[in-house]
Amino acid sequence: MFQYISFRAGMATLISLLITITFGKSLINLLQKKQVGESIRDLGLAGQMEKKGTPTMGGLIIIAAIVIPTLLFAKLENIYVILLLITTIVLGVIGFIDDYIKVFKKNKEGLAGKFKVFGQILVGLIVGTTLYFSDEVVIREFQESGDNTEEVVQAREYTDFKSTTTTIPFVKNNELDYSKLNPTNIDWVTAGIYVLIVIFFVTAISNGANITDGIDGLAAGTSAIIGLTLAIFAYISGNAIFSDYLNVMFIPNSGELVIFCTAFVGACVGFLWYNSFPAQVFMGDTGSLSLGGAIAVLALVLRKELLIPVLCGIFVIENLSVIMQVSYFKYTKKKYGEGRRIFKMSPLHHHYQKSEIPEAKIVTRFWIVGILLAIMTLATLKLR
Amino acid sequence: MFQYISFRAGMATLISLLITITFGKSLINLLQKKQVGESIRDLGLAGQMEKKGTPTMGGLIIIAAIVIPTLLFAKLENIYVILLLITTIVLGVIGFIDDYIKVFKKNKEGLAGKFKVFGQILVGLIVGTTLYFSDEVVIREFQESGDNTEEVVQAREYTDFKSTTTTIPFVKNNELDYSKLNPTNIDWVTAGIYVLIVIFFVTAISNGANITDGIDGLAAGTSAIIGLTLAIFAYISGNAIFSDYLNVMFIPNSGELVIFCTAFVGACVGFLWYNSFPAQVFMGDTGSLSLGGAIAVLALVLRKELLIPVLCGIFVIENLSVIMQVSYFKYTKKKYGEGRRIFKMSPLHHHYQKSEIPEAKIVTRFWIVGILLAIMTLATLKLR
Repeated sequence: MFQYISFRAGMATLISLLITITFGKSLINLLQKKQVGESIRDLGLAGQMEKKGTPTMGGLIIIAAIVIPTLLFAKLENIYVILLLITTIVLGVIGFIDDYIKVFKKNKEGLAGKFKVFGQILVGLIVGTTLYFSDEVVIREFQESGDNTEEVVQAREYTDFKSTTTTIPFVKNNELDYSKLNPTNIDWVTAGIYVLIVIFFVTAISNGANITDGIDGLAAGTSAIIGLTLAIFAYISGNAIFSDYLNVMFIPNSGELVIFCTAFVGACVGFLWYNSFPAQVFMGDTGSLSLGGAIAVLALVLRKELLIPVLCGIFVIENLSVIMQVSYFKYTKKKYGEGRRIFKMSPLHHHYQKSEIPEAKIVTRFWIVGILLAIMTLATLKLR
Repeated sequence: MFQYISFRAGMATLISLLITITFGKSLINLLQKKQVGESIRDLGLAGQMEKKGTPTMGGLIIIAAIVIPTLLFAKLENIYVILLLITTIVLGVIGFIDDYIKVFKKNKEGLAGKFKVFGQILVGLIVGTTLYFSDEVVIREFQESGDNTEEVVQAREYTDFKSTTTTIPFVKNNELDYSKLNPTNIDWVTAGIYVLIVIFFVTAISNGANITDGIDGLAAGTSAIIGLTLAIFAYISGNAIFSDYLNVMFIPNSGELVIFCTAFVGACVGFLWYNSFPAQVFMGDTGSLSLGGAIAVLALVLRKELLIPVLCGIFVIENLSVIMQVSYFKYTKKKYGEGRRIFKMSPLHHHYQKSEIPEAKIVTRFWIVGILLAIMTLATLKLR
């Protein structure tokens, strides 16, 4: 049965759910004992002070529940699985250092921010150069034939080749080659451009998840929905028949990422057992940087990173709300001598809290929007 | 694009989400104006009295959001689609009468209970006799061949035949023919047995959903998870290649039910926009009887009703908790002169409320258990 991706994916989900739910409670007790509780900024929000004493760094159990089932059920010689494990662990460690500084050093911003950027660039460099230079990272094209039955597909001639091609969503002729962005003919310039793009996505999405992680269950639930969507893309991209039928780029061996994705979904859902409103634990940067980074790398490997603005719409909007709020405030301060605001508060979820919508309801509604965005992302499969 | 089930399913989900979210607010305002608010039994639960004034009958929007996308995107000559629409609408009307009596007649139990049983038996009769006698309700068996490629499957000889066969989960030789339960050789005895089985499932599951509908978002969220699982079963059962590959009974034309299922999921998720904690509207019997009935009929049509104890585990446990509580109370009252209880209160979700677990968290945890049960149900696909 272990040959079937579907079976291993089911097992990975079950094990990751069991790990988070079974060991979550002990971790919370341990964290609570060690931490005095994260010193929460007083934002003047209803019920906020009740959250004092809720431990952070809960992301540790998320990472364990992603890594362990992946080690158990995925093929570990697979380049993509290796890259995803590295991303999850490196950003988890960086996030942990971040959280540690915040909780124990009472140094909330300065030092931690630097570590974060360092970690994101490091992961971007590792992933970008590997994807660009590794011989195992290829896409496959089949000889054209009118007949698309399994037999014919299996027997068809194909060529595997390296390429910096990605998928443009919502259009017919849907491929973009990043090497076209290179005005010169020099190979390492293309490599540089590609690595920068990878760093950009890793940084943007891990920051997005980080900012989204501001009210109970929001980042974990949103990530679970995104993870499930990416699991479907991984399954299709790694399957010759389905990718052919749905006209999706065929990426040999990417099917193994389904195991990683389902462990990821199980870990997020299981974490909600304790993290849903009212939360007994927060994931901290340990969790959010790691989840966001893994999502970015998954999308890059599956060459669906241009779908990120839709699929990860929640992260993007949360991120934008902060940027808009801050820039507008600075601009108006300069112009009128007095800073003005677009939202009652940023990130966006705090705006709704200030509008007196109950926290649990804000979270469920963001999840529902996340589901809508996921369906729209999946719909691109047949729109082309 | 309309030939593709996947595309129509995506559209059905989107439309049902849009219907519930867009028109939900107006419906709530209307219901609130008409109703003085359901007179809630005082159970001595935290925050319960705040719920006074929350309107019920919100199930109306759920039914609209199931029926409209199904009418738009499913093939309406399909016998299964017709049966599911009848089930949804009949039980919706019965539930509405139920709610009406409760709200406006201040007659909380008596009359309403009789209508409910009448509706469940009526639906069971319609569905049971149709499934038993209709010539369009068949299963298909293919001639054996070692080769399972698409080409061969498409060209294979097959026989369609009527059968009262169903699937037994978790075992290898996994079929049960209900006609074997008939000790005589008389055909209408088998028909009677089959119809009784259908009535049993329709009654049990619509009651289960009804009982589960006791705290904010519980019935809607649980139903969404079950509906998504049934969508997957419908997709596989109606597809010659997938059903062959996964060794699932092939039921010609059952693929159209994917459209119904995804509209069903969209309606439930969209309803959560207003129904999640703290709820602005309750679905009432209008919603819960209809959702439970549709789930039962879907499982019966797909011949997966023996999976119901796992897939609908939440409904079953909630139902059992009431039966256990009441019987034990009666038994101990008779024996010791004083009634004793197993749970602090039944149905089960009230037990956890009395144990002071916050309502929103109870609901999320029941959802997570629902997801676990769904994965276990899907895992039966490959365990055989």
